Amino acid sequence: MNSPNYEERRHKLLKNFRGQQDLAVDGMLITGPANVRYLTGFSGDSSWLFLAAANTIILSDSRYETQLADECPGVDVEIRDASSTSNDMAAGVISKANVKRIGIESDHLTLSQHAALCGKITAAQLIPTSGLVERLREVKDPWELEQIREAIHIAQRGIAVVRSSLRPGQTETEVRYLLEAAMRDFGANGTAFEPIVGVGPTAALPHAHAGSRRISESPILLIDWGAQTASHYRSDLTRVFFTGKPTTEMEQVYKIVLQAQQAAIKAIRPGVKCSDVDMIARRLIEDAGFGKYFGHGLGHGFGLEIHESVRMSPLSTQEFEAGMVVTVEPGIYLPGKFGVRIEDDILVTTEGNEVLSCVPREFEEAIVPFLA
Amino acid sequence: MNSPNYEERRHKLLKNFRGQQDLAVDGMLITGPANVRYLTGFSGDSSWLFLAAANTIILSDSRYETQLADECPGVDVEIRDASSTSNDMAAGVISKANVKRIGIESDHLTLSQHAALCGKITAAQLIPTSGLVERLREVKDPWELEQIREAIHIAQRGIAVVRSSLRPGQTETEVRYLLEAAMRDFGANGTAFEPIVGVGPTAALPHAHAGSRRISESPILLIDWGAQTASHYRSDLTRVFFTGKPTTEMEQVYKIVLQAQQAAIKAIRPGVKCSDVDMIARRLIEDAGFGKYFGHGLGHGFGLEIHESVRMSPLSTQEFEAGMVVTVEPGIYLPGKFGVRIEDDILVTTEGNEVLSCVPREFEEAIVPFLA
Repeated sequence: MNSPNYEERRHKLLKNFRGQQDLAVDGMLITGPANVRYLTGFSGDSSWLFLAAANTIILSDSRYETQLADECPGVDVEIRDASSTSNDMAAGVISKANVKRIGIESDHLTLSQHAALCGKITAAQLIPTSGLVERLREVKDPWELEQIREAIHIAQRGIAVVRSSLRPGQTETEVRYLLEAAMRDFGANGTAFEPIVGVGPTAALPHAHAGSRRISESPILLIDWGAQTASHYRSDLTRVFFTGKPTTEMEQVYKIVLQAQQAAIKAIRPGVKCSDVDMIARRLIEDAGFGKYFGHGLGHGFGLEIHESVRMSPLSTQEFEAGMVVTVEPGIYLPGKFGVRIEDDILVTTEGNEVLSCVPREFEEAIVPFLA
Repeated sequence: MNSPNYEERRHKLLKNFRGQQDLAVDGMLITGPANVRYLTGFSGDSSWLFLAAANTIILSDSRYETQLADECPGVDVEIRDASSTSNDMAAGVISKANVKRIGIESDHLTLSQHAALCGKITAAQLIPTSGLVERLREVKDPWELEQIREAIHIAQRGIAVVRSSLRPGQTETEVRYLLEAAMRDFGANGTAFEPIVGVGPTAALPHAHAGSRRISESPILLIDWGAQTASHYRSDLTRVFFTGKPTTEMEQVYKIVLQAQQAAIKAIRPGVKCSDVDMIARRLIEDAGFGKYFGHGLGHGFGLEIHESVRMSPLSTQEFEAGMVVTVEPGIYLPGKFGVRIEDDILVTTEGNEVLSCVPREFEEAIVPFLA
């Protein structure tokens, strides 16, 4: 497949929201940038999509006029100049379209934007909706799976370069930029997010920025990274490397995290509750006495964005479906000492699941030759 | 100054919102990440600040526990685990604080978040507010000005390296990454935003991504870039370089844009309307016959974020005040041919203004030696 079928995606959404009796909307104003991209292929921002049975219109500004013509051939485009607002345009388009109930995206409209829209739109009622496009995006189509596989491939090639070139004197920041450059060399359009590179105590901060600690300062190095393809799809992986002799505690913690991750992955299949899979990993870590050091959810969907629906946490209410792609990333963080997180990317299949990522993850494999 | 006085900033905000009779709020829930950072120094995300006369509490999750202790000593912190939500925490904190009217940030709360908060908080009323912290952030304090000057300095050192090493065979993407690396070498924490590097027709897209066009494909190269300091302050500059002999049309367009920019800058002083300054540049471009090719606003405030209040456009309603820092960036974009934008960073002073950036901008200076 060379490109996604945007028309089919829009058709699915139309069918979904027109079929929901309780919503009874006859048009939608899509304001989430990733949702607009998913439904049209447009890669810019500050642009909205108005969708109804007889309308597919992107509302944008003059900065994007040429780009829209390139990226969204066949889609109607309305361009505002510097003296009018998105709300003015939306009001105009909606009044012309003659629809009465417009679905709006509650997750992608601020209170201010909503108040301003309400002030402009008098011909139709605005009906809050949540997650309609996100729901479609949860299950990836074959073209999207190709992109995600490519994003994982690039990330894996990048980390192999970094791992093989680790030196005691390197700082976290140097490792980060080497990784970014390596991924670009293998075709990345950029990183999936700012890579986390943490030595020792920095690895105990689940969302640390790479700083000035050197590899030699601790035997433990945590890297959480991903690549972004030219098509804007992402990967998300984490590995811990031992760049010196691991302590007994490090070995113990590593093996608990790995065991929790593997047990959770094993349980993923269509129909299983996301919260149940989270609980499998959480229980194992709790039973080992580290429950209070695992404070985040087990994993999340990803694709066009790095955090997408579905989420795996004790609060999740969803079940897995074939075609979903999620991270599984339990961790144990010992403040001031070190942290371990192991993260892979998993595709839910009709039979169970497929682990898409294949960076070595056994304890022995985490020990870096020449250094440890 | 070594660090900002966060307590004073919070005190100012408290005084402001408690002094507004029409609001009559006795506490505020700050949900905009840059606003939380401005008021506390916390550099992570997913965290809210509750502020009342007797309370300064950051609501966060366990990923940020250690970072909060480092970055915000003396501020109360409430940490949620994976089985509770921000809304649960906010409701708990607000009910304990015994306040009756809570200001919320309408620009930083989605409809969904608002609905969820309303469902949890029964002890107090949520009062929409807009721009209270942004208003404080418009006028930079001396510490912030130091950071911004540093961000400009790094950006200028970076572009000097790039300019002096331009070669016909380089692609836009290669130039982009060279610029990013150079700015890091000069101390940047990263870029202020994804740099725009556009050759010829790509330069006609005001928000283009660097792609695979080579310098040799056109005599015109547009670069829009900025650095980010370790303290997260930004700069924002644009220059056009002639990497071959400019056509008469390029020279004409360049000189009109520069004239419009210089005339607009000259008009900036306290008490002048932002829309009037926009109009000065816009009229000059219109009178030269290129009005329809300048579709965006003239400039914007920046600091912790790349786009901050104030905005300069025909729709602006504000006036300049001493201490504001804004970009001035008129442009003319000829689709399929080329674009010219010239952007500098301006500090509004009590007497008028100071142009903080000093990359050469005359037409003759834009011609790159060895190439053109």
